[in-house]
Amino acid sequence: MIDAKVKATNIVWHNPQATKAQREALLNQRGATIWLTGLPSSGKSTTAYGLEFELIEKGFLAYVLDGDNVRHGLNKDLGFSAEDRAENIRRVAETAKLFADAGLIVITSFISPYRVERDFARRIHLAAGLNFAEIYIDTPVEVCEGRDPKGLYAKARRGELKGFTGIDDPYEPPLSPELVCRTEEFSPREVVFRIIEFMVEEGFLEGRAHLWPYGRSCAGK
Amino acid sequence: MIDAKVKATNIVWHNPQATKAQREALLNQRGATIWLTGLPSSGKSTTAYGLEFELIEKGFLAYVLDGDNVRHGLNKDLGFSAEDRAENIRRVAETAKLFADAGLIVITSFISPYRVERDFARRIHLAAGLNFAEIYIDTPVEVCEGRDPKGLYAKARRGELKGFTGIDDPYEPPLSPELVCRTEEFSPREVVFRIIEFMVEEGFLEGRAHLWPYGRSCAGK
Repeated sequence: MIDAKVKATNIVWHNPQATKAQREALLNQRGATIWLTGLPSSGKSTTAYGLEFELIEKGFLAYVLDGDNVRHGLNKDLGFSAEDRAENIRRVAETAKLFADAGLIVITSFISPYRVERDFARRIHLAAGLNFAEIYIDTPVEVCEGRDPKGLYAKARRGELKGFTGIDDPYEPPLSPELVCRTEEFSPREVVFRIIEFMVEEGFLEGRAHLWPYGRSCAGK
Repeated sequence: MIDAKVKATNIVWHNPQATKAQREALLNQRGATIWLTGLPSSGKSTTAYGLEFELIEKGFLAYVLDGDNVRHGLNKDLGFSAEDRAENIRRVAETAKLFADAGLIVITSFISPYRVERDFARRIHLAAGLNFAEIYIDTPVEVCEGRDPKGLYAKARRGELKGFTGIDDPYEPPLSPELVCRTEEFSPREVVFRIIEFMVEEGFLEGRAHLWPYGRSCAGK
């Protein structure tokens, strides 16, 4: 009986499979990961959401991965031990890669303080033929501490938060990031347009760069 | 000095934020998760990739999450213990939710043998206002075992694979799935079109249902 069933279902299966190229043609864009890194309160989230908004306004499908949508869901089993922080960033890197493979421009907004983890993110993207840029939101720690919208630096200074990046846990600045943005010198809007300009220059927005018909002067340089 | 720096950077930050509605307007579709569940070799992957292909052909942005792109990346730290299998499905559910939130139609193709995990996936989607459908690829175990393209059932029968769903680990059939598809009665193409028909009926493809201008007769019923 089992043999009979086998034969009955042993038909030729036609297995169509969509390609990344099809998704990119549908979206008229190439998948990419824009990896923001920087100290707490350096301006990563503002940059990420500003960039997402500008890209979507122009018809690009962009999506932000940050603590709000990742720490409360995918990574809610993780705390802030060194091991858990590493696993947090590993999963963000892998998830960003899936989004980029699906054709989206994904913007990650995590402190991601260690070089080894950011290098891992870059490596898995490049190995898959996906665009990737590490962008250093380079804001001096005293400026970040002055902003401190959630009072976290103050808590860390009082010893109520342990292992706080910039206070008692190290931040390893990128050695060769694709771009450095200084938020104490340029407005959020200027930073966003500098990143757009970078993306145009690097071909991340190929075919539709004309949507931003301005020169460097608008990009906060 | 710190105070002076604070004031200098304490500008009014204009924080634009893109909405899910904007992404959906850009894509002309609503985000959704189509959650396939069924025994090993039941036809989940064939269904998933066939559905993805058909949706992309018609201009919808769809993406498959399956063992190939998740087990080797995001979840490569996980094995096949009961605990790890649960964590595997939990992460898939959370990742699918992120994709659906980004506006994609994501198709998950995992055995996902336990009701509690599938219910979790449904719950987090509905709580976020995202479309979700659990689709049971209902293929009798003897048919699956007869297909066995990777020889896994044979290995499990010989005791070389422990905890194999359908042999020595339970599969809990859905109690109230949105749809049941019988791959031993219908061709892969018919199954895919039955799912499309379901999505049209449920409004998952609202505004563009005319892209499939045929009645039930094409859907393998």
